[in-house]
Amino acid sequence: MPTLILLRHGESDWNQKNLFTGWVDVDLTEKGRAEAVRGGELLAEQGVLPDVVYTSLLRRAINTANLALDKADRHWIPVHRDWRLNERHYGALQGLDKAATKEKYGEEQFMAWRRSYDTPPPPIEKGSEFSQDADPRYADIDGGPLTECLADVVARFVPYYEQVIVPDLKAGKTVLVAAHGNSLRALVKYLDGMSDDEVVGLNIPTGIPLRYDLDENLKPLVTGGEYLDPEAAAAGAAAVAAQGAKK
Amino acid sequence: MPTLILLRHGESDWNQKNLFTGWVDVDLTEKGRAEAVRGGELLAEQGVLPDVVYTSLLRRAINTANLALDKADRHWIPVHRDWRLNERHYGALQGLDKAATKEKYGEEQFMAWRRSYDTPPPPIEKGSEFSQDADPRYADIDGGPLTECLADVVARFVPYYEQVIVPDLKAGKTVLVAAHGNSLRALVKYLDGMSDDEVVGLNIPTGIPLRYDLDENLKPLVTGGEYLDPEAAAAGAAAVAAQGAKK
Repeated sequence: MPTLILLRHGESDWNQKNLFTGWVDVDLTEKGRAEAVRGGELLAEQGVLPDVVYTSLLRRAINTANLALDKADRHWIPVHRDWRLNERHYGALQGLDKAATKEKYGEEQFMAWRRSYDTPPPPIEKGSEFSQDADPRYADIDGGPLTECLADVVARFVPYYEQVIVPDLKAGKTVLVAAHGNSLRALVKYLDGMSDDEVVGLNIPTGIPLRYDLDENLKPLVTGGEYLDPEAAAAGAAAVAAQGAKK
Repeated sequence: MPTLILLRHGESDWNQKNLFTGWVDVDLTEKGRAEAVRGGELLAEQGVLPDVVYTSLLRRAINTANLALDKADRHWIPVHRDWRLNERHYGALQGLDKAATKEKYGEEQFMAWRRSYDTPPPPIEKGSEFSQDADPRYADIDGGPLTECLADVVARFVPYYEQVIVPDLKAGKTVLVAAHGNSLRALVKYLDGMSDDEVVGLNIPTGIPLRYDLDENLKPLVTGGEYLDPEAAAAGAAAVAAQGAKK
């Protein structure tokens, strides 16, 4: 039976500072590293052992996968990295303080940028401090997008899932996807057949593996999947939902 | 111009305890982790930036690559792992104290096992404490070898180098190989065209990237390559050579 495990990276330097991050390649905090190790412990304790791992090109997801897999004694499995698993590009908001942005633009505009399905923030200026257009890892996609809404993330990640990850699942493998809040929301929307409106209310907690056992057509046996630590996941999702309110 | 960078992992728990390690999957010590980070600093300082990394299936090489690449801001490059890069399997010596083994079997036998080209130690007993026959990572090679001499490592690693790594070099990539004392000795023997006798005297220091710039036929421009920190490399090689004498 194919199993898909989703793991959102733990706290990063900019989560802690309450800044919009997107494609800016910040590292995990010590708390974030501990979350990743705990994720690996849950995999090991419950015998959910990945055969292959997919990560974004961002350090916080890569290090989360490295720490979790080392703890679960699966550090040796094959690794695939792709920009299509990256966090949503936050456009001109990258590097801005979330609370100050909300103050400046108002609650409604702030929530539209953070949570609406199809409203991208203004594009980032090429060559600016927090843009990625000169980053060698994105050279083959011309520096990548200048901004994205969640619909854009769905449009880049779902085809990758279908073309690259699904063959591993069809081979019966247990696949770990270590990624980000919005790339994982995009995948869950697709897996669970959520509407554009429904996904707006979806919050994925950090550091807690979310397990999807899939049937022969790769449909989830349990809609929404099953967190390996359901209590911690409920508390974590509530914390994510409250994040925009943080001063 | 293709560039090959060899990086031997730093101090592991069993290096520190002076035990034969081989395929036993011990972790780096704090010193070993610092060596890996320093290796990454050298890559960054000298602008030797890998496009792709190859590691063994052993934690000490995998974590060395992870730490070095993170430091060099190349954590996002493609990764390949294969057992053919593993340390030499030390057979029945795995888990034994080096000094006690020398005491028990005598200097001559000890040095033959450690350093001769074609004398493998006695095979390890299947199912014993330090064997790998039940390890899932070696399931597709029937648990792997029960012992190896350096000639065996050459016989498994050089074909992998030719078939898998060389195409990356021919494409002009900078390739990092993060591996072990004896798998790297096997590769250097091949690259430098050393005789079976010559390789016996070759010592590769830990944690210092060894750079080989290659010509169009993938022959080294400089025999023996160039360490990114030549002074530290000379001191390190002397320390490796003296290791058997350690009480």
